[in-house]
Amino acid sequence: MLHILGAHARELERRTGTRLELTGFASRTPARWSELGLDATKCSADPMDLARHPNVDILIEVMGGVETARNVVLEALASGKDVVTANKALLAEKGDEIFKASAENGRMIGFEASVCGGLPIIHLLKRSLAAERIQRIVAIVNGTCNYILTHMIADRRPFDEVLKEAQSLGYAEADPTLDINGGDSAHKLALLSMLGWGVRLDHAAIPTAGIEALPLVEVAYAAELKMVIKLLACARMEDDGRLALSVGPALVPAGSVIGQVHGAVNAVLVDGDHVGPIVMSGAGAGQMPTANAVVADLLDIARLRAAETGDAAGPTGFPESSRGQATLVPREEQVAANYLRITAMDVPGILAEAAGALAERGISIAQVHQHGRGMGGSVPVVILTHEAKQGDLDQAVRAIDAMPKIKDKTVVMRVVEEVP
Amino acid sequence: MLHILGAHARELERRTGTRLELTGFASRTPARWSELGLDATKCSADPMDLARHPNVDILIEVMGGVETARNVVLEALASGKDVVTANKALLAEKGDEIFKASAENGRMIGFEASVCGGLPIIHLLKRSLAAERIQRIVAIVNGTCNYILTHMIADRRPFDEVLKEAQSLGYAEADPTLDINGGDSAHKLALLSMLGWGVRLDHAAIPTAGIEALPLVEVAYAAELKMVIKLLACARMEDDGRLALSVGPALVPAGSVIGQVHGAVNAVLVDGDHVGPIVMSGAGAGQMPTANAVVADLLDIARLRAAETGDAAGPTGFPESSRGQATLVPREEQVAANYLRITAMDVPGILAEAAGALAERGISIAQVHQHGRGMGGSVPVVILTHEAKQGDLDQAVRAIDAMPKIKDKTVVMRVVEEVP
Repeated sequence: MLHILGAHARELERRTGTRLELTGFASRTPARWSELGLDATKCSADPMDLARHPNVDILIEVMGGVETARNVVLEALASGKDVVTANKALLAEKGDEIFKASAENGRMIGFEASVCGGLPIIHLLKRSLAAERIQRIVAIVNGTCNYILTHMIADRRPFDEVLKEAQSLGYAEADPTLDINGGDSAHKLALLSMLGWGVRLDHAAIPTAGIEALPLVEVAYAAELKMVIKLLACARMEDDGRLALSVGPALVPAGSVIGQVHGAVNAVLVDGDHVGPIVMSGAGAGQMPTANAVVADLLDIARLRAAETGDAAGPTGFPESSRGQATLVPREEQVAANYLRITAMDVPGILAEAAGALAERGISIAQVHQHGRGMGGSVPVVILTHEAKQGDLDQAVRAIDAMPKIKDKTVVMRVVEEVP
Repeated sequence: MLHILGAHARELERRTGTRLELTGFASRTPARWSELGLDATKCSADPMDLARHPNVDILIEVMGGVETARNVVLEALASGKDVVTANKALLAEKGDEIFKASAENGRMIGFEASVCGGLPIIHLLKRSLAAERIQRIVAIVNGTCNYILTHMIADRRPFDEVLKEAQSLGYAEADPTLDINGGDSAHKLALLSMLGWGVRLDHAAIPTAGIEALPLVEVAYAAELKMVIKLLACARMEDDGRLALSVGPALVPAGSVIGQVHGAVNAVLVDGDHVGPIVMSGAGAGQMPTANAVVADLLDIARLRAAETGDAAGPTGFPESSRGQATLVPREEQVAANYLRITAMDVPGILAEAAGALAERGISIAQVHQHGRGMGGSVPVVILTHEAKQGDLDQAVRAIDAMPKIKDKTVVMRVVEEVP
């Protein structure tokens, strides 16, 4: 987080129109912070000092745990500070108390980082879908479980073995209990439901199962049904106004968007009455995605504090005064891999000639597929190139199309391989 | 939009803490509006009347077109009104002028509905990813083209034929030119780039190709390469600070998330330096998704106008005072389809007995798969049930597990078939 604040300081200042300054920080290991280049004189051993500090406008709570964090956050709100927290357990346990204090003190509390760090799902529910009557949330909110399930399914290896691997790779904690027993997912589902339906609820009341007892054979049987097993957090608003909540392993179609979410990734499906299903997927946890969410909340609060109209950063999220003209890369200089379909008359040697025209301009070939004779006796040759400047490619294609053996204009399309 | 405002009036009032009132509206066909139950005396023939009306706080522009819309929006901003617009062409053509006027007058302009109506992509770029240095945007932003391409690929039918079908089904306009030639995608890419990188740029400068000349044979050749063709809008920030923008048909891996976006759906991939790739997919256009986005902007502005701290709606997006305790559906009453794996000793009749135990409790069977002899001579039987109350299912499973032929405890998991 300090990395983002440091590396992007100028950009962030440009965006918010205000300068964010680190007034102080609390840590049990001040020496470690000095190593990071922080001013050790700003370090306090007691986070309460920050919660009460007259020069602190916004308190960021990333200490974890519940009791101390609760006291610090409540004190900060009572002292007129806004708060940003990444502490999901805190909000699942003490959310009602903290949200009430935030409202009573007229202070803001940002907690985007607390659920699916890298996915702005809090924002989605709280703001973007505010006009929507939400009917259903189906979510993969635990990256550890999704990593384990993905590898149980792909490699047909048992739970215990994949868990150990996940631990050694850092995808699972040394004590993974709360992840694998579904408890973490229930925490998150409770928070998502609070935001989706504006209710209070106790995460402990959610029927919850984990994946720790999942036999490997189920993975194989699910595959025969063209399904995969995911640890799903499900919420549905019933017609009678009751909420049906559950956490547990469930079968979903293997070809569905939710079924295709692989690895330590999170995905949230929100089904509303007007918009229809929206799916958002991406990194759920990790230091940088979480830090990014904390900073996004920080910027939001800084902007709202600074602005009279609530939108000082301008309609695009950047102040108008700072929005310069973009410098565009001309098409000819853009770099891309390409698909070419060359249509030649049925004569030998066309591939060698075409490859020559590409090679002359430094364009290398990734794949060639020569097809059978097409309509009118023409022979189509499909070439995938490696990345090259479009201008060079245009020249090569012009040279190819001028060859006497060529029958039709060559078809050219970009290839975009690196997508999730 | 009036439908959402009407149907959800109480909910919206609860969310914003303020009452939204329709002060007036402008239309060339007032008679039509009377039919919808609107007060015809509030109707003006000239939208300028609303832009200048002293009792209007927020002007909603959904008239379309560029010139008149521009004049009305500028007049409204100059008269101290905030503006919500769904007009993508207006912003692509006159965005710089309108954004400047919005900033100079200290007024807000909401335009979530202008790009991918049903997907809150504006919000994502402007707020949630404000701390992120965005590296790449790859997007399917034209539902018409994605519908046509999906059916060209799935049915191997040529462009013209599928276009006609799309027109008859309402997925394509009578004049689809701007959709199929990529112009609409270029408009949207220009807006997304303004938000992603805080720049000004002219949509006409984006190298743009459409799908109108795409030969059907390309679809087949792409399939041989395990790829599909999508109309992609791509933006990439180069290391030298230049933006590489392009719109055109492109090949993407068939198994990728972007390759799996089927039908009249939009999807936007945003790649940042800390969060990694986020993909959001959902309905891009349509009356209700667009209306929902307009109302979300309206609520955002109403909330910001009403609040001193900028967050009157409370930390959850609902005022704390209104947030009651949720009534949960107990697990036993929750309705779900289920996967059962029954493990019997190798004796005949177990399927009939198990089916009987299910039928007695009104649970019907969707599929049965009897497997070969497993370890220790046991025979696994996999049953998928139709939807049933979990309590009834629990009883049936207890009855089954008590049968003398049963060897192991039956494994039970939910089945969630209805996911996108």
